[in-house]
Amino acid sequence: MDCIRMAEESHRQDSAYLLIFIMLLTLTILTIWLFKHRRFRFLHETGLAMIYGLLVGVILRFGIHVPQSMSDTVLECAVNASPATLLVTFDPEVFFNILLPPIIFHAGYSLKRRHFFRNIGSILTYAFMGTVISCFVIGLIMYGFVSFMKVVGQLGGDFFFTDCLFFGAIVSATDPVTVLAIFNELKVDVDLYALLFGESVLNDAVAIVLSSSVVAYQPAGDNSHSFEAMAVLKSFGIFLGVFSGSFSLGVATGVMTFTKLRDFPLLETGLFFLMSWSTFLLAEACGMTGVVAVLFCGITQAHYTYNNLSRDSQDRTKQLFELLNFLAENFIFSYMGLTLFSFQSHVFNPMFIIGAFLAVFLGRAANIYPLSFLLNLGRKNKIGMNFQHVMMFAGLRGAMTFALSIRDTATYARQMMFSTTLLIVFFTVWICGGGTTPMLSFMSIPVGVDSDQEHSPENMRSTKHESAWPFRIWYNFDHNYLKPLLTHSGPPLTATLPACCGPLARCLTSPQAYENEGPLHDDDSDFILNDANVSSLYADVTVSTDASGSRTMNPKHSGAGPFKDSRDGELDPAERDVAIRGTRLVLPMDDPLEPPTTVTLPPPIL
Amino acid sequence: MDCIRMAEESHRQDSAYLLIFIMLLTLTILTIWLFKHRRFRFLHETGLAMIYGLLVGVILRFGIHVPQSMSDTVLECAVNASPATLLVTFDPEVFFNILLPPIIFHAGYSLKRRHFFRNIGSILTYAFMGTVISCFVIGLIMYGFVSFMKVVGQLGGDFFFTDCLFFGAIVSATDPVTVLAIFNELKVDVDLYALLFGESVLNDAVAIVLSSSVVAYQPAGDNSHSFEAMAVLKSFGIFLGVFSGSFSLGVATGVMTFTKLRDFPLLETGLFFLMSWSTFLLAEACGMTGVVAVLFCGITQAHYTYNNLSRDSQDRTKQLFELLNFLAENFIFSYMGLTLFSFQSHVFNPMFIIGAFLAVFLGRAANIYPLSFLLNLGRKNKIGMNFQHVMMFAGLRGAMTFALSIRDTATYARQMMFSTTLLIVFFTVWICGGGTTPMLSFMSIPVGVDSDQEHSPENMRSTKHESAWPFRIWYNFDHNYLKPLLTHSGPPLTATLPACCGPLARCLTSPQAYENEGPLHDDDSDFILNDANVSSLYADVTVSTDASGSRTMNPKHSGAGPFKDSRDGELDPAERDVAIRGTRLVLPMDDPLEPPTTVTLPPPIL
Repeated sequence: MDCIRMAEESHRQDSAYLLIFIMLLTLTILTIWLFKHRRFRFLHETGLAMIYGLLVGVILRFGIHVPQSMSDTVLECAVNASPATLLVTFDPEVFFNILLPPIIFHAGYSLKRRHFFRNIGSILTYAFMGTVISCFVIGLIMYGFVSFMKVVGQLGGDFFFTDCLFFGAIVSATDPVTVLAIFNELKVDVDLYALLFGESVLNDAVAIVLSSSVVAYQPAGDNSHSFEAMAVLKSFGIFLGVFSGSFSLGVATGVMTFTKLRDFPLLETGLFFLMSWSTFLLAEACGMTGVVAVLFCGITQAHYTYNNLSRDSQDRTKQLFELLNFLAENFIFSYMGLTLFSFQSHVFNPMFIIGAFLAVFLGRAANIYPLSFLLNLGRKNKIGMNFQHVMMFAGLRGAMTFALSIRDTATYARQMMFSTTLLIVFFTVWICGGGTTPMLSFMSIPVGVDSDQEHSPENMRSTKHESAWPFRIWYNFDHNYLKPLLTHSGPPLTATLPACCGPLARCLTSPQAYENEGPLHDDDSDFILNDANVSSLYADVTVSTDASGSRTMNPKHSGAGPFKDSRDGELDPAERDVAIRGTRLVLPMDDPLEPPTTVTLPPPIL
Repeated sequence: MDCIRMAEESHRQDSAYLLIFIMLLTLTILTIWLFKHRRFRFLHETGLAMIYGLLVGVILRFGIHVPQSMSDTVLECAVNASPATLLVTFDPEVFFNILLPPIIFHAGYSLKRRHFFRNIGSILTYAFMGTVISCFVIGLIMYGFVSFMKVVGQLGGDFFFTDCLFFGAIVSATDPVTVLAIFNELKVDVDLYALLFGESVLNDAVAIVLSSSVVAYQPAGDNSHSFEAMAVLKSFGIFLGVFSGSFSLGVATGVMTFTKLRDFPLLETGLFFLMSWSTFLLAEACGMTGVVAVLFCGITQAHYTYNNLSRDSQDRTKQLFELLNFLAENFIFSYMGLTLFSFQSHVFNPMFIIGAFLAVFLGRAANIYPLSFLLNLGRKNKIGMNFQHVMMFAGLRGAMTFALSIRDTATYARQMMFSTTLLIVFFTVWICGGGTTPMLSFMSIPVGVDSDQEHSPENMRSTKHESAWPFRIWYNFDHNYLKPLLTHSGPPLTATLPACCGPLARCLTSPQAYENEGPLHDDDSDFILNDANVSSLYADVTVSTDASGSRTMNPKHSGAGPFKDSRDGELDPAERDVAIRGTRLVLPMDDPLEPPTTVTLPPPIL
């Protein structure tokens, strides 16, 4: 068999493997539809994808035999034939560079920024301190177990303290995917949702940085795997440097705006997609954390860049990332299922597995309960015990834990970790994920909360009171200077900057921004500076002015965030475009064929 | 340096390489925008992408030195570290399985079906006979050159007759990308457009099948590279089998409809995407031609499945494939530019190159001129000499030629072919692609043809006359039986099938289809059966009825094809949903903020 035919054979195999995955995804989508259709909620789509993956893994493992002659020829032609096994061993690079970015970016792009920032202190505490606590608790417990196993003679290879810490770091990353989906569908209390989601998104980043700090700390000699106070400090320094570097990078690229391409939505969408992806890659190439960078890039883009996009591109980008996120997520989870049988060097050690489950449970408890207690000392809006129990329960492990553990499976310790991690992911996604709905009703946490209720004036006023002064300063700065500088919305800089900066302001303000300036400009700025009527900012509709001078009330496209259910824009009076000059009010309906309800208003008193 | 750090280093490098590509694409998009903005047309975006690729290739080749120690460690850790070179050598599998399908699918999905089918006979002649002629002419000329070079001693390795034929097959594939873009923008005569586009899409498929037939024909002994009549017949058999197999597979998967998912556009779009991709993979895995399968899958889906999608999914799918096509295209062309410097084993043989350019020119001429002469004997609407010259000139070589030649670069002959092919692609894309606009005006071919003029009654009547009887039979069959069976549009089967098939028809008709049945049903079928007023079918607007009973004239969403400029739906009276029950006519504008112009019509006479 010569190499050309070999290459063709290998190509055919590659296609077949890829086809298996695509079929798996197709099957998953069909079943998801069935579940949604029948309102069946005890098994989430990610759990389902894993089950299908498992089944295909069993079939591939026990049903299909690769002829021996094939694998011999592969070696001969290795230079030209592409590796047929590429897709089965599933290069972790593909995982990190291709599948992960859209998921994380989508999380940032669709983040409900208002609830997130209202709880930012608690979220950061759980994500940073909590993950570090969890990592060390798990690491110490595992070290105890491993030492015991060594004494008993149950350990078949080396397992150092740094390995235990590494394990602690990777299993401390909770997964936003499943929680997000379930909580979003059930409309759970928004604060609980924000806490869990914010924590799980950020602790992915923390876990990555922690685990690579542990690896970086590992001494070159390979024989002194002990732990020193100096090294801890060094790791902490690395941690801070990497995190802040990634954060700045993400914000910097997110802020970069392109406002000249509005006439070509295809180019605009393409550019948006590429810039988001390159943020991730740039961070990784610089040795920083792509996940952190792309997360903050997404948040920044939703806040600034989104406002500069054409309407068409706004729809396109949100739909594109929604789809990419959906496909990547299901791909990852079916792949996890597949790995259980297709991975060749599993090491299942019952004692280690029991220890790991115990450690994960205790590590999560050591994160949630003590920190909640401390946070409640400072919070006006306390985190109740039922919330804490749900947070404890909903600490699912998912894509990130898997990705970190499959990245290196060379040593005995790493193989054992990988096998154990896989079991932890399966258990938490199926049992904890499936049990979330019963758990919520058992804890008597209200579901079906209409987030519109959240917008009542009383609620809003309390939000305002809750917000600390740094937040208020930031908000004013953002509204008066950053938004006008980076987007076309908001008052022109010429109005907000002091008179001495006049020329600079004129040069930095886009022509569109001046359209906001007009006879009503004073009203507009009064509106912003007057904190008393802040409650009116949270009305659910946006009044904007179009070229024909008619006022349009548009509850859907509030121009605030890329997703329908994101009500963050209401924080921002600038988005209301309150210049009232029009004569008609049009309320567009969902059905595009339905003629819009047209209401004629009297002209405003000027 | 241990393996974990090695893996991290390699990951960083991978990210950097991918980043370079993304940056390249970003740069290309920005420049494209600049070109579009300034209406500069002499260099097309694909040519531009190649230039940027070339520049980066030069930088990578001469600017960056990989430290020797790195490459040594790579070998040690090869088991765990992912190959850092993967992205630079650019696995052809990625090309075939990931980048090519969206381009070809998009071509099928956005095909202007009416013009395509009006010229189907000529297109098939050029694509099938023409490509075979071109392949053999090029093969023979190259064999002459190679034999001469062997005598002169200019040849550094083996070069058999089958290699020449293989070369002929791969350089006979003309590229639809550039032609499509230029002609679409300039609004060139629709028939010329259809001929060129149809030919270039189909001959990609023909070239793939031809080249693999040549390889399959190659005797196992490797020493008898002669050519026999028997083998030609065998190749022809393989060719027919593979082509028809791929065609059936594509149509079969394209026809598969999913009508229950309309409530979940995300799932629907995901499923649509996956099914289209799996068509490609399934065909490849079965040893057939994915390109042919996915092309006809796209055409079939645009014709049937598209009508079953929800409005939201219709928009999403067309935008998604437009974007994927755009990105994949630019990625491929920048990669081509990059390869000129990054590929390590180029063999540039001046004599071979001169011979190849000559052969490509003569091969194209032997395709176009004789076949046009023969076709003109049968065509009422002759293909003029100026059209023939443009077709000759616009035979650009692009993505497919490149993909086929990079697939195997093991032998001396293949390396020489690859290098030469690269030069041919560069030359045709830059010189022929850039010269298309001047060429058109030199040949006095009208540009800026408003395709609405094509819809005048006289034109339409001539179309009807031109259409051969097989087409008319197919059209009636499609309209009366296939469309009702596979989509929700058209008359219900209960109306079109003979009475004896009543129960079967009732069981196969979807509930929505019955909505078309009503008091006006007789008018509707009269309309279809009465050929005399066929011209009125080509009006540019679609009158549809929504639930509220108002008539909506919608020139944009005619429900006929996924793209705005596709006017194929006018062939199909069923799509007009002529049930006239409403009272109001709403003409939606492009600007969603603009209140729609509302025109109140008198109620129709029932």
